[in-house]
Amino acid sequence: MGEAQGKGDTRVAPGLVRFELLHEDPGSKARRGRVHTPHGPIETPIFMPVGTVGSVKGVGPDDLLTLDAQIILGNTYHLMLRPGEALVGEMGGLHRFISWNRPMLTDSGGFQVFSLSEKRKITEEGAAFQSHLDGSRHMLTPERSIEIQETLGADIIMAFDECPPAQSERSYMEQSMARTTRWLHRCAKAWSRERSSLFGIVQGGLHEDLRKAHAEQVCSVDLPGYALGGYSVGETPEAMHAGVAYSAPLLPRDKPRYLMGVGTPVDLVTCVEAGVDMFDCVLPTRCARNGLLFTSEGKVVIRNAVYAKDPRPVDPECSCYTCRTFSRAYLRHLFVAQEILAMRLNTLHNLHYFLGLMAQVRRAISEGRYAAFAQAFRERAAAQEAERTRAR
Amino acid sequence: MGEAQGKGDTRVAPGLVRFELLHEDPGSKARRGRVHTPHGPIETPIFMPVGTVGSVKGVGPDDLLTLDAQIILGNTYHLMLRPGEALVGEMGGLHRFISWNRPMLTDSGGFQVFSLSEKRKITEEGAAFQSHLDGSRHMLTPERSIEIQETLGADIIMAFDECPPAQSERSYMEQSMARTTRWLHRCAKAWSRERSSLFGIVQGGLHEDLRKAHAEQVCSVDLPGYALGGYSVGETPEAMHAGVAYSAPLLPRDKPRYLMGVGTPVDLVTCVEAGVDMFDCVLPTRCARNGLLFTSEGKVVIRNAVYAKDPRPVDPECSCYTCRTFSRAYLRHLFVAQEILAMRLNTLHNLHYFLGLMAQVRRAISEGRYAAFAQAFRERAAAQEAERTRAR
Repeated sequence: MGEAQGKGDTRVAPGLVRFELLHEDPGSKARRGRVHTPHGPIETPIFMPVGTVGSVKGVGPDDLLTLDAQIILGNTYHLMLRPGEALVGEMGGLHRFISWNRPMLTDSGGFQVFSLSEKRKITEEGAAFQSHLDGSRHMLTPERSIEIQETLGADIIMAFDECPPAQSERSYMEQSMARTTRWLHRCAKAWSRERSSLFGIVQGGLHEDLRKAHAEQVCSVDLPGYALGGYSVGETPEAMHAGVAYSAPLLPRDKPRYLMGVGTPVDLVTCVEAGVDMFDCVLPTRCARNGLLFTSEGKVVIRNAVYAKDPRPVDPECSCYTCRTFSRAYLRHLFVAQEILAMRLNTLHNLHYFLGLMAQVRRAISEGRYAAFAQAFRERAAAQEAERTRAR
Repeated sequence: MGEAQGKGDTRVAPGLVRFELLHEDPGSKARRGRVHTPHGPIETPIFMPVGTVGSVKGVGPDDLLTLDAQIILGNTYHLMLRPGEALVGEMGGLHRFISWNRPMLTDSGGFQVFSLSEKRKITEEGAAFQSHLDGSRHMLTPERSIEIQETLGADIIMAFDECPPAQSERSYMEQSMARTTRWLHRCAKAWSRERSSLFGIVQGGLHEDLRKAHAEQVCSVDLPGYALGGYSVGETPEAMHAGVAYSAPLLPRDKPRYLMGVGTPVDLVTCVEAGVDMFDCVLPTRCARNGLLFTSEGKVVIRNAVYAKDPRPVDPECSCYTCRTFSRAYLRHLFVAQEILAMRLNTLHNLHYFLGLMAQVRRAISEGRYAAFAQAFRERAAAQEAERTRAR
């Protein structure tokens, strides 16, 4: 499929995002695409910064526009607890509340119920849990998750699922998948098909046959997009890469494919090669707040004493505000002194790195040289990591 | 003295700032001036945001340029302890280290030694103290303070003084003043007269005769500017205003007058009326981090539940990024959720308020209506504060 395809009909059906497949890499399963949404197009493959509770931690919407972030993510679990989706709805929806006019995606809350909340109990009806903030009792069901997400009003919303760890017992995984499928049908029924587009989620852990069976079940529900869940929960990178390489092609070619909660730069580059279009992860923002910076020369732990008098930018090849303006010595000082500015400058840099990497990825696919790009990227990353380990 | 005076010689002698008196208000002692520095001119009266340890807490130099901050302050005490002035010197000085190319002022460290450090001991030689960070032992003397400040390389540096509380015993105050005068002579002798301009500091608490005597002693040393110290340490606003009204005119008319560590909006407006040109205070930045916002309608405590669904900007009359972009509801949410972005948005707003107030002050002086402006400002502030107290 050539670039010409990209010039076709770009109207978005009300409430539905539409995927435009622009180019398929000849040497891999990588795809260059465009997701049309009510808030404008997203160029894929894309990395989505995570704005957990109405803010991408450390930066403002002005910073995100400067970084040219195309889409950000909000967490239903966090937002339903604080400030509450009703309040966000009264304030005109999440876009308006947080002053973000570009596309947005919310997750279903399922993952956080299972990872963050206390005393959770899963039944056929849904998941009862206690807030990690104040212990208050809540219930998330497929219908309730869709209701909350439609109130928040993101362009893309996710089906409510259970996300069992990749290493779960096969028997538990089978039960869980079956329930997730029943929940998906309830989500699809509850979904208004206005404004927000529902994506389904394929589970199945590292069991290929279960992934295949679940992909068939999930993709039999006609939805604007599909996701792979459960790949960011404890498995090795190699197992995850192999799993995604198997699973991504099980999803429809003409819909966006979203790999949830992944991952490192090497994960992104490798899973794009398997045909994934969309990623989200807290890694760049969380690492930034902990002083771990991603650079073209490998990882930089900015608090290390070796940077105390280092006049160089964090990444000499980087064009972000942080690297254009400040030395490693100053960034180390800010981090050690626990200055608030350290959080913003580090986050700006890491997001610029992740978003810039995805721009390189898109270019490599468009130019039909993705397999070579991905191989070279992995080799360089491995060499840098080996160097870093030796230096310690 | 008319505006024409402003078109005269604006060259700055190497190492010396030069004050250009542009206009004197006919109805008060307020003055409109310009301080020429090696990093460009400062329009006075001016408020200087405090960048304690190499960063104005919560904002970046990009934000400060957007706010059009003309000059910022650094704290010698904090910087000598972390990262250490030698490191800053090696990195090319404080301007370059923190990427701020506009004027900068450092204090002498004296005030913080007396307010922050532990186990301090004052002798004729100087002040021995233990770091509030790690208990390490240090010594600040007049010579050492000047050496540190010249290494940091600010445009304006301050004499090392003791800053006794305004309510100190008269006898202690007299001893302290005499020592501060002897220290001033040592500072002036240690000062290289290159790059950084030394300002002297007049103490004397609320004793008018002591202030007068100390002003004569301090101003007998020919320096590029003079400051009033000890007015932000525990006295009532009324006593402080009366004290400054008495003391400010004791300082030379043809040199900038700097009131250290002051103050609230009413303090600034009132002390300008007494003839003060320069102010610094942590109030706008510290209050911002605590969620107290200054507005044209009075103070706003943003965490109050009354703002939970308030779609209005913090200050409908404000043109800052925060007010142009976000609702009180969102700012409250960010503050309650302890999002880092709350610190930046609140700080942007408060600094915009303080800097905007000083722009209004300068305009009112230039237009010869300052006394009326100040009176109206105080009356409005008192009415707003009364309203706020009633509402609680």
